[in-house]
Amino acid sequence: MNGFDGLWLKKLQRTLPPCETPAETAKAELSAFFADRGLGETFALAEDEALGEGYRVCWEGACCRVAGGHTGLLYGAYDVILGLLKGEGRQDLASAPQYPLRMLNAWDNMDGSVERGYSGRSLWFEGGRFDYDPERIRYLGRLLASAHINVLCLNNVNVHAPAQELVSGMLGDLKAFAALLRPFGVRLMVSIDFSLPLSAGLPTADPLDAGVREFWKALADRVWAEVPDLAGFLVKADSEHRPGPNAYGRTHAEGANMLAEAVVPHQGVVVWRAFVYDCMQDWRDAQTDRPCAAYKIYQPLDGDFRDNVILQVKNGPYDFQVREPVSPLLLSLKKTHLALEVQLAQEYTGQQIDLYAMPPMWREIFDVLPKENICSMAAVSNLGRGYFWTGHPFAALNLYAYGRLAWQPDTEPGRMIGDWVRLTYDLNVEDRESLCRLLAGSRNAYEKYTAPLGLCWMVVPHTHYGPCPGGYEFDLWGTYHRADRNAVGIDRTGEGTGYALQYPEKLHELYENLDTCPDEMLLFFHRLSYDWVMRDGRTLIQRIYDDHFEGYEAVRAMAETLRALPLPENDKAEAESRMQRQLRNAREWRDVINTFFHRLSGVSDARGRRIYP
Amino acid sequence: MNGFDGLWLKKLQRTLPPCETPAETAKAELSAFFADRGLGETFALAEDEALGEGYRVCWEGACCRVAGGHTGLLYGAYDVILGLLKGEGRQDLASAPQYPLRMLNAWDNMDGSVERGYSGRSLWFEGGRFDYDPERIRYLGRLLASAHINVLCLNNVNVHAPAQELVSGMLGDLKAFAALLRPFGVRLMVSIDFSLPLSAGLPTADPLDAGVREFWKALADRVWAEVPDLAGFLVKADSEHRPGPNAYGRTHAEGANMLAEAVVPHQGVVVWRAFVYDCMQDWRDAQTDRPCAAYKIYQPLDGDFRDNVILQVKNGPYDFQVREPVSPLLLSLKKTHLALEVQLAQEYTGQQIDLYAMPPMWREIFDVLPKENICSMAAVSNLGRGYFWTGHPFAALNLYAYGRLAWQPDTEPGRMIGDWVRLTYDLNVEDRESLCRLLAGSRNAYEKYTAPLGLCWMVVPHTHYGPCPGGYEFDLWGTYHRADRNAVGIDRTGEGTGYALQYPEKLHELYENLDTCPDEMLLFFHRLSYDWVMRDGRTLIQRIYDDHFEGYEAVRAMAETLRALPLPENDKAEAESRMQRQLRNAREWRDVINTFFHRLSGVSDARGRRIYP
Repeated sequence: MNGFDGLWLKKLQRTLPPCETPAETAKAELSAFFADRGLGETFALAEDEALGEGYRVCWEGACCRVAGGHTGLLYGAYDVILGLLKGEGRQDLASAPQYPLRMLNAWDNMDGSVERGYSGRSLWFEGGRFDYDPERIRYLGRLLASAHINVLCLNNVNVHAPAQELVSGMLGDLKAFAALLRPFGVRLMVSIDFSLPLSAGLPTADPLDAGVREFWKALADRVWAEVPDLAGFLVKADSEHRPGPNAYGRTHAEGANMLAEAVVPHQGVVVWRAFVYDCMQDWRDAQTDRPCAAYKIYQPLDGDFRDNVILQVKNGPYDFQVREPVSPLLLSLKKTHLALEVQLAQEYTGQQIDLYAMPPMWREIFDVLPKENICSMAAVSNLGRGYFWTGHPFAALNLYAYGRLAWQPDTEPGRMIGDWVRLTYDLNVEDRESLCRLLAGSRNAYEKYTAPLGLCWMVVPHTHYGPCPGGYEFDLWGTYHRADRNAVGIDRTGEGTGYALQYPEKLHELYENLDTCPDEMLLFFHRLSYDWVMRDGRTLIQRIYDDHFEGYEAVRAMAETLRALPLPENDKAEAESRMQRQLRNAREWRDVINTFFHRLSGVSDARGRRIYP
Repeated sequence: MNGFDGLWLKKLQRTLPPCETPAETAKAELSAFFADRGLGETFALAEDEALGEGYRVCWEGACCRVAGGHTGLLYGAYDVILGLLKGEGRQDLASAPQYPLRMLNAWDNMDGSVERGYSGRSLWFEGGRFDYDPERIRYLGRLLASAHINVLCLNNVNVHAPAQELVSGMLGDLKAFAALLRPFGVRLMVSIDFSLPLSAGLPTADPLDAGVREFWKALADRVWAEVPDLAGFLVKADSEHRPGPNAYGRTHAEGANMLAEAVVPHQGVVVWRAFVYDCMQDWRDAQTDRPCAAYKIYQPLDGDFRDNVILQVKNGPYDFQVREPVSPLLLSLKKTHLALEVQLAQEYTGQQIDLYAMPPMWREIFDVLPKENICSMAAVSNLGRGYFWTGHPFAALNLYAYGRLAWQPDTEPGRMIGDWVRLTYDLNVEDRESLCRLLAGSRNAYEKYTAPLGLCWMVVPHTHYGPCPGGYEFDLWGTYHRADRNAVGIDRTGEGTGYALQYPEKLHELYENLDTCPDEMLLFFHRLSYDWVMRDGRTLIQRIYDDHFEGYEAVRAMAETLRALPLPENDKAEAESRMQRQLRNAREWRDVINTFFHRLSGVSDARGRRIYP
């Protein structure tokens, strides 16, 4: 295992005997675990397909009876084990997932790189082909299953050569890889290239062309013949220069439905990403407002998608910024299957150098988004081949918690964090609570020193780490704050770009009204002058300064907390080293953003702290 | 020749019989040329070593008598040929170079890439080794000789593996390459890595260590045994993370002298680049001012360098910006051999997309710099394997003119431009003058739409093409304009960073005094508020706006001029296509910079032209 440390399953045995099915895996895990415990516990598994992925656990003395469907047994087994590991005792349990598809999207390229990956190279690709340690992949299966994640899309949504061949020349390899994960209830998904018919020699990729439809049907037949439980295809089309149906004057519904028709005989789904906007915007054009784009494209198509199409929508209308309102698409589409997409890879949120525990952010999303609005979840993976799998040892929390969220979005953030800490580290109560607080507060600290009040995109272009307040201001990406000497922010009310009008009435009013708009969203929805007086009496500019100063101080306190924690040596060394980088990053953000606004506004800090000229 | 079109020698025969010496080349060129002319002209060559690189040409009827030293005959022959091609008739000539070393620095990496190269891949490297068409290299030799360039440093000053081996494992290849260029009077130079002793297994690269001195001596002996006329070594040390003597507490003089001692038995020189500054500056530090750095380092070392060391100094104190004052080092070092370094590769000046003829800029340099202050010149090459050798077909002018400048820096810019145009294109008088004006005005246009008044570094970081006014503002490179809502620029007077004090008294007073400081340097030397009234009555902010509007209009006019010119089809198509890109670039610069300053200053354009909010 190359020194890898097992993440939240480190207290289990490293290897498991070969299993063919999830039920066998459940049995193997429970056998090994109870044998290790040495308390004479036994178990009985009863398959009950009526329970589906759900399960029931009843203890009769020292005998643990688990009933569940095909994979339900597996999830039940893991929850028994994790519960005991957490010290919860022999509890009866009953649980079933909110969402049948709990997907992990790996942005792994076949050359072994990972787009926006901060945890080392791909776990399964290298040099243009599959290249992995089967034991490591089986361990990955255990990790995913224990988090209740059941779909892995294994290649980048930006399909770079030779990943097109995953569904043609490399089917044998795909089949072998699928077989490794099948005993863990994890099904594969593949990102496909909408223009594939062209590279196969067809004259068009028009989704209404009979030859194209036939092409995809035949392709699906061949793929599912090799991987009969493939979950489906993931598609990024007409987005950031990826090919799509628009090239042929077709709608996204026509594009997606054509693929859906091809995969429906195999019970496959087509997951169609709604991350579509004009990425060649002229910054001079103040009418076009990127957050408006997806709603405008997809709202008119509501009801046009086939039943086995899922529209996958990022949590916010931009792109995984530290703070965004919930995408209005997720609130408005009523006749379309929706998946909520979040990003575990911390592209804009510290790149697994800075601490950023996501459960509190997810809680905020579901405070606005009724969980019934969506039918599934997807998360951009934060996994890689590095020692800690997730870059920062604490970033494993986000992977674990995501699985739990997709199983049951009502789960409290504190519960997710506490569970992960208990499973991962042996700490006394005080230290455990200290680590939990550190994690629970990490997002607020990050937000304060980077982008408070809903300001976005002040990051260094391309790399997306560190501050560069003007970096995207004159670029093509539609990501502007338009700060000038008097004011900052975009007016997205009905008076402005109209973005706020895309929300249901109550939310629209909440955001539109300066008296009710949450502080955290203020500059996302409004353009305000620096002397605007906020509800707490501070001016806007003072609040910007305060947040940046406080954010940095919060990181200093976090560093103190971390230093005092008795963690395993490797984890401690890695976490402390990253914390030093986070401190430097937080200082840079504090000073650059404060200086930027000081140069613009000319206003000094009311508390006399140093702002560089 | 892969369709390459011969540049300013296109009217000569494409191939030349094999020659061993410059005199043979002279003979072959004259024979072929006179034969082609068909006017019964003859010639006689008389070697006279007393003339050195110089020559005398006397016509006796139709017989052209050329006297000159070893390479003087060659330069005489080319000047006879070029003179006749330009239509100057049978003129008697006498000429000798101002500088004995007229160097071209190629920033070619052995993987075939060219650092800051905009003309395609390396002409002689690919895949980690030499890889070239010998005929093309011989043609390169003719081009260089006809421009009177006599040294080619063939590898990047940033020595990336495996270029270290040029002076060890690849000596055979180096020898063969040198042999190709020797008949054209072009000697090679090699960029070396100061830390080479370490990779050779020595425990140190300390220049005062006896083993290190012995290492370099033995290496020089081996190198010159293979290439006896090697010009010397070029060294970038203690600069932008390159290794150097500072690591051992030694001065640059100690470092350079150690190498000089090794090469002196072979009449070699050590060219030591003075491009040294703190490239890890904290932007908060307003005391440190990058343009001050080189003077502070090298002025105290004046007189410490051995006689065969040449300190190579970039024309300005920054890094090839569109407008910089002459480096004070070039004016202050009295006991050090100096080379002036200019950059033909248009890193910051349009990347061979935008037109930028350099002779007017060089004229300005020599208006300030007495030509006797320096002993040689170097230019960063703009050559590559692309069809036009220099990216833009007109960019060949800069290569040709540079050679002429290094031969005789008094040459008028108009003469250089006119000569190149005559040699390259067959145009009537009107069109020729039109093209000459287009070229002669190109630098002023570029300056106006990009960086007027001595403002620098508003470029997109890393790529250095296009505007990004805040891109370097909070970075590590010491390149700040510190624009705020009231003012812009760096105070470099005695009251400020003191940079102006590095100049001789008269220049110091000229720059320091706001009444005399040239407009073009105003914001290089002074920090001024936007309402500063300039000598012509305009405010500073209005002048910024005006220049940007006028710069764009100038490009529109240039595009019109170009469209009307009857150029060869390939040249025309390429030049027009690049002109369209230049127009887009100029528009972007105009609007981004104007908006940037409008957002800061809040001042509208006095003439009501559109500035985007």
